[in-house]
Amino acid sequence: MPYNFYAGPCKLPESVIERIRNEFTDYRGSGMSVMEISHRAQPVLDLLERTQEKIRRLMGLAVDDDVLLLQGGGTLQFSMIPMNLSAAGDPVDYIDSGYWAAKAIEAARQLERDVHVAGKAHDTIPTALDIRADARYLHVCTNNTVMGTQWQGIPESRVPLVADMSSDILSRNIDTGRFALIYAHAQKTIGAAGVTVVIVPRKTQEMIQPGLPSFFDYRTHADAGSNHHTPPVFAIYVVECMLDWLEKEVGGLDTMETLNRDKAALLYETLDASTLFRCPVPSESRSMMNVVFDAVNPEIVSIFSQKAEEAGLLGLQGHRSRGGFRASLYNAVTLEEVETLAGFITDFEHCYG
Amino acid sequence: MPYNFYAGPCKLPESVIERIRNEFTDYRGSGMSVMEISHRAQPVLDLLERTQEKIRRLMGLAVDDDVLLLQGGGTLQFSMIPMNLSAAGDPVDYIDSGYWAAKAIEAARQLERDVHVAGKAHDTIPTALDIRADARYLHVCTNNTVMGTQWQGIPESRVPLVADMSSDILSRNIDTGRFALIYAHAQKTIGAAGVTVVIVPRKTQEMIQPGLPSFFDYRTHADAGSNHHTPPVFAIYVVECMLDWLEKEVGGLDTMETLNRDKAALLYETLDASTLFRCPVPSESRSMMNVVFDAVNPEIVSIFSQKAEEAGLLGLQGHRSRGGFRASLYNAVTLEEVETLAGFITDFEHCYG
Repeated sequence: MPYNFYAGPCKLPESVIERIRNEFTDYRGSGMSVMEISHRAQPVLDLLERTQEKIRRLMGLAVDDDVLLLQGGGTLQFSMIPMNLSAAGDPVDYIDSGYWAAKAIEAARQLERDVHVAGKAHDTIPTALDIRADARYLHVCTNNTVMGTQWQGIPESRVPLVADMSSDILSRNIDTGRFALIYAHAQKTIGAAGVTVVIVPRKTQEMIQPGLPSFFDYRTHADAGSNHHTPPVFAIYVVECMLDWLEKEVGGLDTMETLNRDKAALLYETLDASTLFRCPVPSESRSMMNVVFDAVNPEIVSIFSQKAEEAGLLGLQGHRSRGGFRASLYNAVTLEEVETLAGFITDFEHCYG
Repeated sequence: MPYNFYAGPCKLPESVIERIRNEFTDYRGSGMSVMEISHRAQPVLDLLERTQEKIRRLMGLAVDDDVLLLQGGGTLQFSMIPMNLSAAGDPVDYIDSGYWAAKAIEAARQLERDVHVAGKAHDTIPTALDIRADARYLHVCTNNTVMGTQWQGIPESRVPLVADMSSDILSRNIDTGRFALIYAHAQKTIGAAGVTVVIVPRKTQEMIQPGLPSFFDYRTHADAGSNHHTPPVFAIYVVECMLDWLEKEVGGLDTMETLNRDKAALLYETLDASTLFRCPVPSESRSMMNVVFDAVNPEIVSIFSQKAEEAGLLGLQGHRSRGGFRASLYNAVTLEEVETLAGFITDFEHCYG
């Protein structure tokens, strides 16, 4: 079995894969696969409700925070957020902290919002922020997968805070009460591709623009319990399995965070001790999820890539916009797997250093 | 195992379910589940390409017809079609042939298009059509799941024809060259919920409005081979399995159509011979996919429902907007299963007729 360090879609826990396979032909005694059951039948209605409730519990959300399970990825949210929370010409502030944050900015500009970049840096987390007092919201991407940076805290903001947590949702404890909206596609830390979690507190729903076509209005999906149109049932089922794993096997979010911290610390220590590789990210901005590194000498790049592949270490190429290397250590990657990668780097150092 | 007559999500072929389960932990020798593989890695790039190619082949599409594999269901297409093919205020024509066609009309109206209903009937297929010569397109829903009606031919139209085939795509041979755009969510005839097929010929792409936010522009997805943002990999994989089944096990679209005709004919004959039940749809408008029927005497409704459930016949309730009964006989439902249902109705007739 390979070591899966893909940036997403990526590894799922072995026990989750096993559970899905075991339940695949007979979902909860129905005699059918979960994929074959109508979205209006009780087993799927129950699945939707349980999944929303488990997200609410694990994230410490308020009872009346709507948890939407939508299609279209983080990318559709780049448009739905400005559409819902602002009108054309309205001031909206964004922190440009990376490749995906920049995509969110681009979408808001295409929708003719008055976009202001309240802070910009891709190689570190931006510090000096200049947030407009009349901005409808401030958008932040909490973890930046391409350059390997992550917010350690939550930016101070007097305007409603909107967060893209696609690459670190439920990987650490965070004060969710500080956010006006949180969204995350599932395929990195909490599931497989095909469903996006959008958390929209009641108070945020009061900001929603009148006259929005109903598909794009968060309230349509909130009022229908994410069953306004056929939901991506199987992808939601995978999320439920991941939440069960996180709660029952890992032991909750605190344990998950400790494990994630240990995994990242081990790999960063290995890289900091290396003479062949270096991590370009300053320690206060380093991501626990995506560890980005470069070869000091470009000549070893291809031999390292080749040897890693031979050793079954997959997904270590950096993002196509950056190059270099990247190991993604999302929730399902085990400490043992990171030890294997760290050991491989150390061994490589002995041979080629 | 129950008899699954759900209106969608619905039954998948047993061999498809079995194949997915068998391949679940090791996709094509990768040692990983297909859900765990990056959408930028070769196995998933190949999956996307093969699936598009198989749809092209089975539907008899032109080589340069773009086959998009999108999220958001038919419901997102209700908005994307007017957004792409017309500007606000532009004339767009729709045939209001049922519940879902009416939803498409509603979305076009919310987007402030000049909507004209070129024909309307829900209990039969509309005949007299009044299509405006300057309409940007004519939208038709080829099969109407709620009232159980289906277009037997393709409406004559001198304006570009757009078709929602969500409930009958690849269930019968149809001249796809007549359409400017075809769309269908997968969860009825060709897969599970979570992916929507949109066929956009090159010529149609010339109609696309300038200035559309890039996520909503079909060309964004066409140019990226449906990999502009993370595609719903697993749902696409299920579609590929269904296409393989249709091609190799069923033996192609002609055989599929013959089988679907036989299934529907058997059930309609049973209902027409019944004294307890009747099908309200005139024969020239009857759907091969959704057979709608009512009890002549309302007093037998609850006993029929109860006995059907006891016999493991699931999903026979009519749509919540209509009531009555409905059996959905999509591609995966076997002739034997329809014989069981027909036999059940006949036996019920003997006991209660």
